[in-house]
Amino acid sequence: MLQEEVRRELISILGSEHFKDDPQSLVTHSYDGTPMLQSLPDAVVYPSSTEQVSQIMKVLSRHKIPVVGRGSGTNLCGGTVPVQGGVVMVMHRMNQILEIDLENLTATVQPGLNTKQFSTHVESLGLFYPPDPSSMSISTIGGNIAECSGGLRGLKYGTTKDYVIGLEAVLANGDIIRTGGKLMKDVAGYDLTKLLVGSEGTLAIITEATLKLVPPPRYKKTMLAMYKDLYGAARTVSKIIENRIIPATLEILDNATIRVVDDFAKLGLPLDMEAILIIEQDGDEEAVERDIAIITEVCKSEKADQVSIAASQEEADKLLTARRSAFTALARLRPTTILEDATVPRSKIADMVIEINRIAKKHQVQISTFGHAGDGNLHPTATTDARNKEEIERVDEAFEEIFEAAIRLGGTITGEHGVGMVKSPFLEWKVGPAGMEVMKAIKSSFDPHNLLNPGKVFAKETRKRVVIQRG
Amino acid sequence: MLQEEVRRELISILGSEHFKDDPQSLVTHSYDGTPMLQSLPDAVVYPSSTEQVSQIMKVLSRHKIPVVGRGSGTNLCGGTVPVQGGVVMVMHRMNQILEIDLENLTATVQPGLNTKQFSTHVESLGLFYPPDPSSMSISTIGGNIAECSGGLRGLKYGTTKDYVIGLEAVLANGDIIRTGGKLMKDVAGYDLTKLLVGSEGTLAIITEATLKLVPPPRYKKTMLAMYKDLYGAARTVSKIIENRIIPATLEILDNATIRVVDDFAKLGLPLDMEAILIIEQDGDEEAVERDIAIITEVCKSEKADQVSIAASQEEADKLLTARRSAFTALARLRPTTILEDATVPRSKIADMVIEINRIAKKHQVQISTFGHAGDGNLHPTATTDARNKEEIERVDEAFEEIFEAAIRLGGTITGEHGVGMVKSPFLEWKVGPAGMEVMKAIKSSFDPHNLLNPGKVFAKETRKRVVIQRG
Repeated sequence: MLQEEVRRELISILGSEHFKDDPQSLVTHSYDGTPMLQSLPDAVVYPSSTEQVSQIMKVLSRHKIPVVGRGSGTNLCGGTVPVQGGVVMVMHRMNQILEIDLENLTATVQPGLNTKQFSTHVESLGLFYPPDPSSMSISTIGGNIAECSGGLRGLKYGTTKDYVIGLEAVLANGDIIRTGGKLMKDVAGYDLTKLLVGSEGTLAIITEATLKLVPPPRYKKTMLAMYKDLYGAARTVSKIIENRIIPATLEILDNATIRVVDDFAKLGLPLDMEAILIIEQDGDEEAVERDIAIITEVCKSEKADQVSIAASQEEADKLLTARRSAFTALARLRPTTILEDATVPRSKIADMVIEINRIAKKHQVQISTFGHAGDGNLHPTATTDARNKEEIERVDEAFEEIFEAAIRLGGTITGEHGVGMVKSPFLEWKVGPAGMEVMKAIKSSFDPHNLLNPGKVFAKETRKRVVIQRG
Repeated sequence: MLQEEVRRELISILGSEHFKDDPQSLVTHSYDGTPMLQSLPDAVVYPSSTEQVSQIMKVLSRHKIPVVGRGSGTNLCGGTVPVQGGVVMVMHRMNQILEIDLENLTATVQPGLNTKQFSTHVESLGLFYPPDPSSMSISTIGGNIAECSGGLRGLKYGTTKDYVIGLEAVLANGDIIRTGGKLMKDVAGYDLTKLLVGSEGTLAIITEATLKLVPPPRYKKTMLAMYKDLYGAARTVSKIIENRIIPATLEILDNATIRVVDDFAKLGLPLDMEAILIIEQDGDEEAVERDIAIITEVCKSEKADQVSIAASQEEADKLLTARRSAFTALARLRPTTILEDATVPRSKIADMVIEINRIAKKHQVQISTFGHAGDGNLHPTATTDARNKEEIERVDEAFEEIFEAAIRLGGTITGEHGVGMVKSPFLEWKVGPAGMEVMKAIKSSFDPHNLLNPGKVFAKETRKRVVIQRG
């Protein structure tokens, strides 16, 4: 519970209808998209303007009360769980598209704006905002910025970071900063824009964003290649890139994922395949047709069992929707689904899938793998049961070894989900002790009292990296 | 002069042939590409490895001696002038391409590598590294990273920042950090990679970089459009973008620049034009031809006096070389050339050119303007004489008003040259007092004793913004 004085100050800023500390509101905001993590906040607030956010931060800062900024809480790293209590600041009331500038091809939006709604609106104007995280029908732009969300189109178009060119943000002390602008080039001082993107709410509360829009592709084509040999699928990925083709989408589903996705989406996929690649290319018609022809040849040369091209946009959409539903489909198998995002150089995806399968077998846990093969961004996904403590321990051990394997292959512990609570014990494996010191110093320089999303990114203790010896 | 003890320690690390403190070496490294700035260092060192850089930093850190990392010193912001003395660390011996990874489409290089040499090598392998600063035949990749260099292809392909995906760097205390990797996606902690790019040597010494390569365009076409009305040229820029076309290059030259460039490069340009646009599109042949046809229509509808398409690659190269020679050509006019890079949203370039011309007239100084119109990144260039103190004061006043005008139009004080010494008194105009505080705190967190390129980015005093009242 907040002190009565703080409560009164917050209500005077927000109005009583936008300050909640009833049990239902607290429970609703005690968890996010990440399984097995829960912690009650002391209050939930719904600001409607940057000025309110600034006033709230001044109050919280004076009383040293933690604050967790939150969009729709779809993240998978425990990023919005209020693990040290305090206030959850929900940005849903700040959900406006403030401007679409057709001359400069920029959009200025508030953080609580729904990603899909924004993306659809932009498309209706004949423009394109590429980042498409799987959660986009629920997620917010602010959440996407905090986590630097990726998506299926990341291979060709990059991730959220590549589209954020300006920000307004409120610092821990309530000061408001503006970074970048409607500018394609700006080197005035350190790049605070890119630093705030992906900072997971630990450096500032984002209150407005200027986003770059691009011309949409004129044409696209989607294809499916199925393999009885996983390495054939992986070699196909490398060979496509080596052929100087960057597809818009290049997704992989392993056998376990194929089975559940097919059962869920009724696609009639053959269930004896070790891997399926879903490949989409977009651009000008001539170029797309040429690329698809080359890719088809590459698939065949790598002994794809079947290669088929979607005959219509409906068929293509069905395939991509099936891929997007992988998480949901897997979630039907068992009570708890843990979706990870170990990422490796794209040349290493076959090695990584083999490692994941070996590790899953060793620990006798069910792990299905799908993901953005072209990026090397894989989603090993454990289907398990949170109530079975012993099994969860085995799952944890398996993921620890998976992160270790990713690092060993030149990869990272997270490609697009963020560090949050879940990956924080492993961050030092990727960035090293000196990197940790630098990041902690940056955190302190923004937020000396550790009020912004405390308990995230930085763990109390780094997990000991003893996996190789055990493996 | 360094203390004898420090001198001895540095020589023991480097060998005596790679430590210089003779007057000639000191004078040679007392200035860079920026006019009218000079300050002698105490020594010049040439490390050959990351390990040596680390050892040197430990020595300098222990003795609190400033250090300025330097490539070829082609920057235009005083970025490598050792304004507080100390050691200039020249990276020319660390100039190797360590690896080109054809599976992952990455290059790993040392900072002293020449940009043009790298770019040419990459092209010989059928790949493409887009950043092309005008200084690329002399500049180094390390310098490009420190300054976040842009270039003529920035509009479509982005700047250096968009291609740096991993770094090795040595901190002030000698610790070595590694960021990113051969990874298209990595959200493990704060994005130190993008923070170091453009940090102008004030946060760390970059010792290795992993760069993203892309497939090269298959086809390109270059055209020229000439206008008697500057606004017609500016409207053409906006309309091209509004037509959902992002050209590879979209450059503008004003009348004063046309005259000197023509005299220098003997192109036979008509000298009565107010502006020329040089436009290049690349990609697949069909798409390029379609875009060029649409652009031609846009040029004509905006009353271009002449529109011509380069008949051959030689003719196209000649045009682009002429554009690249604008600085050199202007430099022949008078003893001192001051090239600036005020940048505005691209919809505002006509307003900005008008402002520049008004301000130049008001202060009776010669300012020619050219630059990357598609980016809104203009290069107002004063031709003057450093020996004429009174005239230089007028030039300074004019640029101050130009920066003020850029900010007023939603722009920035520097689009691609960096802050260095030259822009530091104006940085607060762009980022505000709270932004300055955050940047200073980041600087302190990396470099608590202010040893890395001191006197850059942060000025002792921000220039008072009184221009509007005077104007």
